[in-house]
Amino acid sequence: MEKGLKIVTIGGGSSYTPELMEGFIKRYNELPIKEIWLVDIEQGKEKVNIDAKMSQRMWDAAGYDVKVHVTFDRREALKDADFVTTQFRVGLLEARIKDERIPLSYGMLGQETNGAGGIFKAFRTIPVILDIVEDMKELCPNAWLINFTNPSGMITEAVIKYGKWDRCIGLCNVPTIAMMKEPIALNVDPNELIYQFVGLNHFHWHKVYDKDGNELTSKVIDAMLDGKDVGLPANINNVPFFGEQIREMNMIPCGYHRYYYRQQEMLEHSLMEYETIGTRGQQVKETENKLFELYKNPNLDHKPEELSKRGGAYYSDAACECINAIYNNKQTHMVVSTKNRGAIPELPEDSIVEVSCYIGAKGAMPVAWGKLPSAQRGWLQCMKAMEECTIEAAVTGNYGLALEAFTLNELIPSGENAKRVLDELLIAHKNYLPQFKSTIEKLEKENVTIKDSVVNEIIAHER
Amino acid sequence: MEKGLKIVTIGGGSSYTPELMEGFIKRYNELPIKEIWLVDIEQGKEKVNIDAKMSQRMWDAAGYDVKVHVTFDRREALKDADFVTTQFRVGLLEARIKDERIPLSYGMLGQETNGAGGIFKAFRTIPVILDIVEDMKELCPNAWLINFTNPSGMITEAVIKYGKWDRCIGLCNVPTIAMMKEPIALNVDPNELIYQFVGLNHFHWHKVYDKDGNELTSKVIDAMLDGKDVGLPANINNVPFFGEQIREMNMIPCGYHRYYYRQQEMLEHSLMEYETIGTRGQQVKETENKLFELYKNPNLDHKPEELSKRGGAYYSDAACECINAIYNNKQTHMVVSTKNRGAIPELPEDSIVEVSCYIGAKGAMPVAWGKLPSAQRGWLQCMKAMEECTIEAAVTGNYGLALEAFTLNELIPSGENAKRVLDELLIAHKNYLPQFKSTIEKLEKENVTIKDSVVNEIIAHER
Amino acid sequence: MEKGLKIVTIGGGSSYTPELMEGFIKRYNELPIKEIWLVDIEQGKEKVNIDAKMSQRMWDAAGYDVKVHVTFDRREALKDADFVTTQFRVGLLEARIKDERIPLSYGMLGQETNGAGGIFKAFRTIPVILDIVEDMKELCPNAWLINFTNPSGMITEAVIKYGKWDRCIGLCNVPTIAMMKEPIALNVDPNELIYQFVGLNHFHWHKVYDKDGNELTSKVIDAMLDGKDVGLPANINNVPFFGEQIREMNMIPCGYHRYYYRQQEMLEHSLMEYETIGTRGQQVKETENKLFELYKNPNLDHKPEELSKRGGAYYSDAACECINAIYNNKQTHMVVSTKNRGAIPELPEDSIVEVSCYIGAKGAMPVAWGKLPSAQRGWLQCMKAMEECTIEAAVTGNYGLALEAFTLNELIPSGENAKRVLDELLIAHKNYLPQFKSTIEKLEKENVTIKDSVVNEIIAHER
Amino acid sequence: MEKGLKIVTIGGGSSYTPELMEGFIKRYNELPIKEIWLVDIEQGKEKVNIDAKMSQRMWDAAGYDVKVHVTFDRREALKDADFVTTQFRVGLLEARIKDERIPLSYGMLGQETNGAGGIFKAFRTIPVILDIVEDMKELCPNAWLINFTNPSGMITEAVIKYGKWDRCIGLCNVPTIAMMKEPIALNVDPNELIYQFVGLNHFHWHKVYDKDGNELTSKVIDAMLDGKDVGLPANINNVPFFGEQIREMNMIPCGYHRYYYRQQEMLEHSLMEYETIGTRGQQVKETENKLFELYKNPNLDHKPEELSKRGGAYYSDAACECINAIYNNKQTHMVVSTKNRGAIPELPEDSIVEVSCYIGAKGAMPVAWGKLPSAQRGWLQCMKAMEECTIEAAVTGNYGLALEAFTLNELIPSGENAKRVLDELLIAHKNYLPQFKSTIEKLEKENVTIKDSVVNEIIAHER
Repeated sequence: MEKGLKIVTIGGGSSYTPELMEGFIKRYNELPIKEIWLVDIEQGKEKVNIDAKMSQRMWDAAGYDVKVHVTFDRREALKDADFVTTQFRVGLLEARIKDERIPLSYGMLGQETNGAGGIFKAFRTIPVILDIVEDMKELCPNAWLINFTNPSGMITEAVIKYGKWDRCIGLCNVPTIAMMKEPIALNVDPNELIYQFVGLNHFHWHKVYDKDGNELTSKVIDAMLDGKDVGLPANINNVPFFGEQIREMNMIPCGYHRYYYRQQEMLEHSLMEYETIGTRGQQVKETENKLFELYKNPNLDHKPEELSKRGGAYYSDAACECINAIYNNKQTHMVVSTKNRGAIPELPEDSIVEVSCYIGAKGAMPVAWGKLPSAQRGWLQCMKAMEECTIEAAVTGNYGLALEAFTLNELIPSGENAKRVLDELLIAHKNYLPQFKSTIEKLEKENVTIKDSVVNEIIAHER
Repeated sequence: MEKGLKIVTIGGGSSYTPELMEGFIKRYNELPIKEIWLVDIEQGKEKVNIDAKMSQRMWDAAGYDVKVHVTFDRREALKDADFVTTQFRVGLLEARIKDERIPLSYGMLGQETNGAGGIFKAFRTIPVILDIVEDMKELCPNAWLINFTNPSGMITEAVIKYGKWDRCIGLCNVPTIAMMKEPIALNVDPNELIYQFVGLNHFHWHKVYDKDGNELTSKVIDAMLDGKDVGLPANINNVPFFGEQIREMNMIPCGYHRYYYRQQEMLEHSLMEYETIGTRGQQVKETENKLFELYKNPNLDHKPEELSKRGGAYYSDAACECINAIYNNKQTHMVVSTKNRGAIPELPEDSIVEVSCYIGAKGAMPVAWGKLPSAQRGWLQCMKAMEECTIEAAVTGNYGLALEAFTLNELIPSGENAKRVLDELLIAHKNYLPQFKSTIEKLEKENVTIKDSVVNEIIAHER
Repeated sequence: MEKGLKIVTIGGGSSYTPELMEGFIKRYNELPIKEIWLVDIEQGKEKVNIDAKMSQRMWDAAGYDVKVHVTFDRREALKDADFVTTQFRVGLLEARIKDERIPLSYGMLGQETNGAGGIFKAFRTIPVILDIVEDMKELCPNAWLINFTNPSGMITEAVIKYGKWDRCIGLCNVPTIAMMKEPIALNVDPNELIYQFVGLNHFHWHKVYDKDGNELTSKVIDAMLDGKDVGLPANINNVPFFGEQIREMNMIPCGYHRYYYRQQEMLEHSLMEYETIGTRGQQVKETENKLFELYKNPNLDHKPEELSKRGGAYYSDAACECINAIYNNKQTHMVVSTKNRGAIPELPEDSIVEVSCYIGAKGAMPVAWGKLPSAQRGWLQCMKAMEECTIEAAVTGNYGLALEAFTLNELIPSGENAKRVLDELLIAHKNYLPQFKSTIEKLEKENVTIKDSVVNEIIAHER
Repeated sequence: MEKGLKIVTIGGGSSYTPELMEGFIKRYNELPIKEIWLVDIEQGKEKVNIDAKMSQRMWDAAGYDVKVHVTFDRREALKDADFVTTQFRVGLLEARIKDERIPLSYGMLGQETNGAGGIFKAFRTIPVILDIVEDMKELCPNAWLINFTNPSGMITEAVIKYGKWDRCIGLCNVPTIAMMKEPIALNVDPNELIYQFVGLNHFHWHKVYDKDGNELTSKVIDAMLDGKDVGLPANINNVPFFGEQIREMNMIPCGYHRYYYRQQEMLEHSLMEYETIGTRGQQVKETENKLFELYKNPNLDHKPEELSKRGGAYYSDAACECINAIYNNKQTHMVVSTKNRGAIPELPEDSIVEVSCYIGAKGAMPVAWGKLPSAQRGWLQCMKAMEECTIEAAVTGNYGLALEAFTLNELIPSGENAKRVLDELLIAHKNYLPQFKSTIEKLEKENVTIKDSVVNEIIAHER
């Protein structure tokens, strides 16, 4: 790669954009960026323009000669790009609210990347990301796609397996946060610790070792059970894990494991919010509005503190670090979504997994973990199968497979209500699900209606 | 083997014993039995004596010179046995009622071989079967163990993996019933059909082909969705499968898949029975009492029709056919639980699976199925992992692993209630769970009490 | 399938045709054949006509109304065929002689299905069989392809993997002969024995059990080491195996294992024949001529005894039995080449393997073997990799892959001579290797000449 | 680990000891060594004393306060050791000469780590290394075993699988040399290149990438085929690879692949040396004598240039770097023998493989490679199976397994001569093969004699 990098950010109007800029600015000495293109859709015009101005102020304040562009023509931006980051949300926060409220209206977990909501986020995003990949093949065939659109693992698998685009790395902030907080909880130098992560996006475990190779995993577990902050994303309710279970496995689960290990309490909490202050998406919408109000301030030229309180904090920092590691061939240890290659021998060799990798110019080199204990093996195999059904349904629009994905998903109790949730979500998201067109038409003919009134209001507003 | 077979039936006082006798009598020309030993525990003395007299009458009426013995000393019976069948129920029907009612009292499925109940049936049975195997090694090292104690797959896995006893085949009536009823539903000659089954005990699918090799699977699915009887065990509530899902997989699920594919309705039905007529175990108890009243009749010398209405019907017929196939080296196609050996390549090679086998003198030869679609693969891998945790916990008494098994189980929503159900079941079954002694003592010290009043009555009665 | 079967035999002018007819005649009561089509190429006109007349005499003598047709238009024959058998030899016996003599002229084993010769037989046959499959897709899409053209395993793998034609079974006489001779050597009733075979075509092992399930493998090994006939094909030199090795593995190797376990002696024997009486192909040519002289006799209406002395005896009997098992849905135990499906878990799931199967209307159902000891596992994996390189080179004409196949093959010591043998064989077979056209032209430009004078004479004669 | 490391070198009397010292001295700032213990056997007293004095001079010249001890009591040295390196040669160079000459006397490759010689080196070394491991468990349970005794991969597998000692890393100089020489051949900065290695010890391939992630593999292949030095160990005859083969695989084979890819020429070269100047072992013996003469010089206090000419050069440098990476938790990329863990998914998960690893305080973290092309996959699987038979035979003394290992080995043509070579080697090495005692006694009773006169002289001398 020549000096003077062109970075393209699809979903440029995200409230995380200033964090991304901060990350690039911090690394400018190593990452000689020349231009940044924020791509968004017409609907997001206002936000992306606010972001662009804010970003340009940040670069200018830093004293670097970097130009921030805005475009609504993706192809214009992609031409000769060096790195493409994706942080778009198909259907905006309104879609997230639908993903959350429709399942909850039937007493099932509604969440952005887990349960029915996560499946539908994949359904909406995969057709778009595959289109982006086709454009990249034509316009920037040597670029890297750094994806942090959720569900990050499934999106990465779609890109690599169905899009046949290998130069893709999926990112997540969850491992980053763990590796920031655990040393603090243990009161040790973060540079001395060795981490090894294994699993899938939002569904991984890890072990920790000190500089003499001694395993510290049980100490982190102790700290976690003592209530210390070992890195829970802000969007996840802090129900403690069962000590007996975690000590038996002697691996540190990620924050999202709460949905699977403490399903009852996580559901109760979500239902409580659903019935009172609104779901996470509703809350975030307010936060976002506040953030954009801040960003509008023509004197603000650095990332405001308020941004760190969102669940996705550090996501974009991870992206910058990943780009840095590739560009400068650093062989940095990072935990990313990449092709398995045997790293988890009990998952298919070509599955996307989220494991400890060394990142350099040729991409992610995954560290082989070896055999897992029965429980973790079974969980991963089940989740991966669910992901495979979801991705294939997202690509083909196969309703039966969508139902299989719902049935396999441990957070969705199968039966009439599950099927109803599937149908309502199809209708609610119909503008973003071209692949399911004929099914949705059939459901509409059958007059399937949506139960949740908030969702109905959103839809009414959308027309 | 010499002529003059010695058959030992452990759990001889079961209400199914007359069916077993009928199966042997029908096959006497091929299976030259000399003596049958019904083994039971002192607690079951009355029933086993009724069974023994009834059995002897059946043999005498058939005109064969076979002697039925009763013993409470297992080792006396096992000496030089040729075939050992196991149909015992540790803790009797009272234990089943506990397995059903405690989960249901927390709104979770309570069932004999699925969910928390199935896990506890394994916890109680595995220590006993491993003791039996040790006796067999000493007293009848060439005998075959034909297990139809549930959960049949897990018991067989314990015997082969932990007991290191290879001469074991696990049986189930579910495939037998399917292969009886489907030809009737399709109106074809049963001998013309080819079946191939794949999966685990109470969790398998199959495909059907006609005599020209054409696949009939979709026709059976049509018949099933049309409400025809394609072989549902009597104990399972007949909720229909979702056509879209079943047609997509194009494999015929077993009756027990309803618990996983229609979880909501199966749970609702169980809760309704729990709150009204009592759980299946409570119902069966009455049926059993009636059956034993019938068996007492000194003029009754054949299996009464009433027995066929129980869910376990044809179980013992399958056992007799299996013994026949081994003894006469018949290479009969049967669907049994046996060592995987690669038949399902995506499960561990030494797992116990329930697949189409050819049965002869060297035991079961499993037919290799090949790769499965994502959803079925994921389900099997998850269930097998859950079984592995259960079996290991049953052998070691490891509470953390028991909790892992509960958490993995899709019918148990994880969380406080799940853990409470685990704890109550440990206390309720304490007489049969020596391996969990220290945990149970700890729970008792913490004054963990049982919520369900029926269970509390049973326990009060047991003291 | 309707009554009145149409059988097509490609390579109808083979000297084995009368055996095939005998096999069909013996089974006519079960296999209601109406017409048999012998397909050959113009070059083989004389032989196929002799075979056709001889065959018609055999059917007439048997008193069945079956018509034997001859055609040189494969497509005419394939139209609406029920079963297609393939026994053709691309390049006739002359090609076999080249396969044998060229390697031997450099001191390497020259053999029909092993070493360089086997690789080249695959190179010549695979393009032709793939053409046949394309015709079948169009003209007889429900027919079964019963292949006994060697190397039978590789040809079957090409048909299924590259031709995408699943209705194919590969046959071999080696297991048949073993199952005929071993009972005689052990003096037991053949119907009482249980066999389980595992491996690849011409590279399998098996175990034997008696009617009580006791393993007899070591007794067969004893008999074999005592020099008893346990079923060696007539074309293989009878060097004894090393007792220490065979007893350690406790599996019965096939006759062809001699090439791998006693490489030195097998090579010495071949070199001796090469230098004296001529290679097997040269010997067989004489035998064939004699057979056709016999077949010309208008009074001969049954298979002559002389045919049994060839190495391929019982091949066609196996084919008839396989067709019978499919047509009548018999679930017969046979050892055939079919898709692995996990039967040998340490080979790819979609490899073609030769294992114990049950054959019925839906084809071959392979029995899962499970894990193999290190040595057998390694041998199979190495041979399968060599087969994969060979098949891919046969399809693509990739010279580098052909060289990889040569290098992997344990019977070809790598180096300058091996490469020279490869080059000479390419030139010698140029008429039958369209896929290697450009490589052959390059070699011709480089004036690569053939060393063996007999081969040079054959080539001179061909022009 | 505390400051003040205790290093133990078993086989301290090796001629490589000065290189090892040099490696430690260079890294003293990072590796604060306090004492070095050279362990040897009484037979090697003279050499180890020369080495010890030379080593002490080197340390003193460097100005560091490190004490070099000599002991013939291994347990004294192992007490509280931090790192144990092994470079011993059971039976000294005389054993190597036997390993080389006996196979060559029958026209088969005789080599230190390949063919029959490599198998016997494993037979002699494994019992000793397992004894060392038992001592380590008792005397220094936290120490790391850094093995560079050949065959390094098999020795490491014996330690980890049979010795149950996980803190072991196997080293080899071959990857080190490649990574030193290839940048020179390509004229690029070595720090910019990314390497990924995959395979087994002395049987691996690799790929190379530049700092922009572009693959340079084909450029290295071009350089290699152009005759440039890309890192051939000094002990290997430089026969060129076949370009067509190497370009097709597009992976860079290691120097030892010549034995397998150019078997004919490698054997011819060895036979030529055998018949003229003597085998490599004989040549090395002279070199060694010269080296020790140099070492005796009381003024020599640094590693002499002459040492670099031996095949094993850089071995001990690799060892020092590995120790450094562990001690300082450096996450250095190195190519070492470690547990597979899925890195090569087509080999057993617990096999020892030689792959790219990141080395730090918890040992080696292997990078997952993913699926290999057929040929490389088959080669590795075959070699691994051969290694497994060898290791098991080394542990058990099973003659049948030894014969299986010989038969699988592609460099040993099976048959009477191979068996004879096995028998002669057993007799020749009888003092070091306690596990084969009964077999050797049997062979002696049968008066099996050794053909090669040089070996006979050595043996006569040993008595």
